[in-house]
Amino acid sequence: MAPQLEPYFKKVDELADSFIDRLRKAVAIPSVSADEERRKDVFRMGQFLASELESLGAEVQQRPLGKQPGKEHLDLPPVVIARYGNDKNKRTILVYGHYDVQPALVEDGWATKPFELTIDDKGRMYGRGSTDDKGPVLGWLNAIEAHQKAGVDFPVNLLCCFEGMEEYGSEGLDDFINAEAKKFFKDADAVCISDNYWLGTEKPCLTYGLRGCNYYSISISGPGQDLHSGVFGGTAQEPMTDLTLLLSKLVDNGGKILIPGINEMVAPLTEEEKALYGPIAFTMDNLYESLGSQTAIFSDKENTLMARWRYPSLSIHGVEGAFSAPGAKTVIPAKVIGKFSIRTVPNMESSKVNECVYKYIRDEFAKLNSKNTLDVYCQHDGKWWVASPQHWNFAAAAKAVKEVFGVEPDMTREGGSIPVTITFEQATGKNVLLLPMGSSTDAAHSINEKLDRRNYIEGTKLLGAYLHYVAEEPMVEAR
Amino acid sequence: MAPQLEPYFKKVDELADSFIDRLRKAVAIPSVSADEERRKDVFRMGQFLASELESLGAEVQQRPLGKQPGKEHLDLPPVVIARYGNDKNKRTILVYGHYDVQPALVEDGWATKPFELTIDDKGRMYGRGSTDDKGPVLGWLNAIEAHQKAGVDFPVNLLCCFEGMEEYGSEGLDDFINAEAKKFFKDADAVCISDNYWLGTEKPCLTYGLRGCNYYSISISGPGQDLHSGVFGGTAQEPMTDLTLLLSKLVDNGGKILIPGINEMVAPLTEEEKALYGPIAFTMDNLYESLGSQTAIFSDKENTLMARWRYPSLSIHGVEGAFSAPGAKTVIPAKVIGKFSIRTVPNMESSKVNECVYKYIRDEFAKLNSKNTLDVYCQHDGKWWVASPQHWNFAAAAKAVKEVFGVEPDMTREGGSIPVTITFEQATGKNVLLLPMGSSTDAAHSINEKLDRRNYIEGTKLLGAYLHYVAEEPMVEAR
Repeated sequence: MAPQLEPYFKKVDELADSFIDRLRKAVAIPSVSADEERRKDVFRMGQFLASELESLGAEVQQRPLGKQPGKEHLDLPPVVIARYGNDKNKRTILVYGHYDVQPALVEDGWATKPFELTIDDKGRMYGRGSTDDKGPVLGWLNAIEAHQKAGVDFPVNLLCCFEGMEEYGSEGLDDFINAEAKKFFKDADAVCISDNYWLGTEKPCLTYGLRGCNYYSISISGPGQDLHSGVFGGTAQEPMTDLTLLLSKLVDNGGKILIPGINEMVAPLTEEEKALYGPIAFTMDNLYESLGSQTAIFSDKENTLMARWRYPSLSIHGVEGAFSAPGAKTVIPAKVIGKFSIRTVPNMESSKVNECVYKYIRDEFAKLNSKNTLDVYCQHDGKWWVASPQHWNFAAAAKAVKEVFGVEPDMTREGGSIPVTITFEQATGKNVLLLPMGSSTDAAHSINEKLDRRNYIEGTKLLGAYLHYVAEEPMVEAR
Repeated sequence: MAPQLEPYFKKVDELADSFIDRLRKAVAIPSVSADEERRKDVFRMGQFLASELESLGAEVQQRPLGKQPGKEHLDLPPVVIARYGNDKNKRTILVYGHYDVQPALVEDGWATKPFELTIDDKGRMYGRGSTDDKGPVLGWLNAIEAHQKAGVDFPVNLLCCFEGMEEYGSEGLDDFINAEAKKFFKDADAVCISDNYWLGTEKPCLTYGLRGCNYYSISISGPGQDLHSGVFGGTAQEPMTDLTLLLSKLVDNGGKILIPGINEMVAPLTEEEKALYGPIAFTMDNLYESLGSQTAIFSDKENTLMARWRYPSLSIHGVEGAFSAPGAKTVIPAKVIGKFSIRTVPNMESSKVNECVYKYIRDEFAKLNSKNTLDVYCQHDGKWWVASPQHWNFAAAAKAVKEVFGVEPDMTREGGSIPVTITFEQATGKNVLLLPMGSSTDAAHSINEKLDRRNYIEGTKLLGAYLHYVAEEPMVEAR
């Protein structure tokens, strides 16, 4: 039976201005986790969030994570965890978000003060953290408040996990989640994360996959110190020559990875999966707009989306140790480190990817017969993630989108990674849904970050509606 | 008839401590031309030099060069020009040196205070500018003083040209030399520059050749701004991929330039020239020591010296616009500029070298069929230089070396460039000799720069002896 959502929706509309006020207060706290000077503001933001949750009747804890590794004079901001509702007859949904933000300075080119929510005549609400991730986090609080004020029973038990270090590597969070999975989070039936974005600006999406990332360094060293190319050019084997030769053998300019064994690990494309790409609201013009050019590898939507989401890619990021400034410098660098990464997809195993990379680089280096010294290593890796979009968690969200926006959501993946997704999946063993609130034009991490009023208010409706449909879905487990 | 040099040599030995005091005073003036804050010290050093020359009876001028291009709030330091002697029956020798120095900070790793001459028990005189180029410049003044105090007639008319911007691109100097070639410098019969180094530590050398340098940028651009490799990896043609492919086609790791037409321009090796390399005091161990490793291309002296001096080389210096810091950043750079240079030798013509480079890069880029945009250009070029070591200017210097050090000098070239050499040759039309004072271990431009007491004092004898032999050499012009 379809849930009766009208009273809730109506109350959200009535409370819209006060929800925007809540966001204004949150944006005004410059909780920049990367900036030591702002650490006290990150704590202040955690306190703000805890107080708001408490005033809504949630049971709240601010859990310390200890000192910041490598900066022991700094305390890590707490994880704000909360429980709202404790009814054994209801499902329990664990939601994650973060209350810290990226740095922002007017001098970076902001058109408005970054920590002052500024709304233009098109309802675009500018401010650091508006879309990433204060708006979505407050969406959950708004949903609770609108239920209370509309006199509608909250359909689930809600568990909250809001961290304050997401923009600085989520220091300490994985251990915390693993430790609490069978404690504070033990009742969770599913997880929902609202911290990514629609593919475009009009149509909501549900995200069921992320690529992983293995990041490599190729280090070549030879001379004891940097050399003058006038004096030593022609007599020394130059590390940069070797490195350039190795980097040129990794990928062709059509995006094909040249390292044997990598492409062979990729899960074959099924007809069923192939059919998913057609209906997605995305055009090549969307790509060209975000690229700022027409320098795309593929000229059609399907191949482009598959290249972004379900095939691996290899990017060469740069060289450490060589001359990198403007102008001219006639140096022979003594040690250079080439950086590249491979975006990974099902069914690539990180350790096997590493083996293929190491073997190939070493073999190619051996062919050069160089007297220089090679070292190749993985700086870090993060696994890809794919959930089943058939799970009731996704089915509920899809119905909520249809209810609030009148359309079927796009079923999307992301080309990048959101590591906490896998942490939750592995720690809880439950299905994880990515349910974005913001749109592709929100400029998270950039200047002039914004969240559209529509996305915030309809998004609050969406989060509430999702919880109602979650409560209605049959108990068929299909992760 | 051999000149009678004993009284002069004896006086130099007697005055050695006062000559070292002169160097101590000069080193104490931190005349760092690259540092705006030190500009007043560069002027102070010019004044010191002018005063010393005047007190020796020279006619001195400090010639202004106007404002510094691009930094119009700064005056360029003057060129200190001087004439000592005006006897129509004597030859006139024009000597060049510079009184500015490289930057130096104790924090860079100096074992002593860089602007305080510090002499250790092996007679190594540490201090910024000791060998580059204050020691050699003061050597000319010492030679004048020792002649006066020994009562020995100065054998030539001496013209001095000492500049204060050599370590910062010799701003304004070429125009000045060209303008004065037929004025203040018009009597010059030959030019002598003491601003390079012996090949080793024991045996002096005369330098008759320099390589030129053409410096190139390959710029590849595509996207409108830097991209996230998670979102765009696999869908965008990455400029860094194209650049890496192009850079890998320039040179092999045996040092062979792969650009068609370049090697074909190189003057063939004659038996006569080949024979010059055998006697030179240089071993592979010297090379390994200066490399700080054994990563040399050749394993024998002759090929190594020829590769340094008489064959072109190509070095890849780095990439501008890509990620170059330590750590990991998953960026796809939107525009990258690869930098490389070709060291040029006889008979390579700069414009033809450029043509070969441009054509090859453009052809190779066309093969990639890339949607990105290529630009390739020469940032700057400087011509190679080779003088005739048979000229009387060199013959005189060789006799002076034999007289002072008891050995035949090595006849060397340099792999790097000293652009003022060609400027003097072209402006005056006279033979230019490079007559170094310091040794290969002096660490010019590095921390712990030094000049050995022996090199400074015997070097002062050498400069004076050279002028006596110059006065004796028959008037056979053979540039």
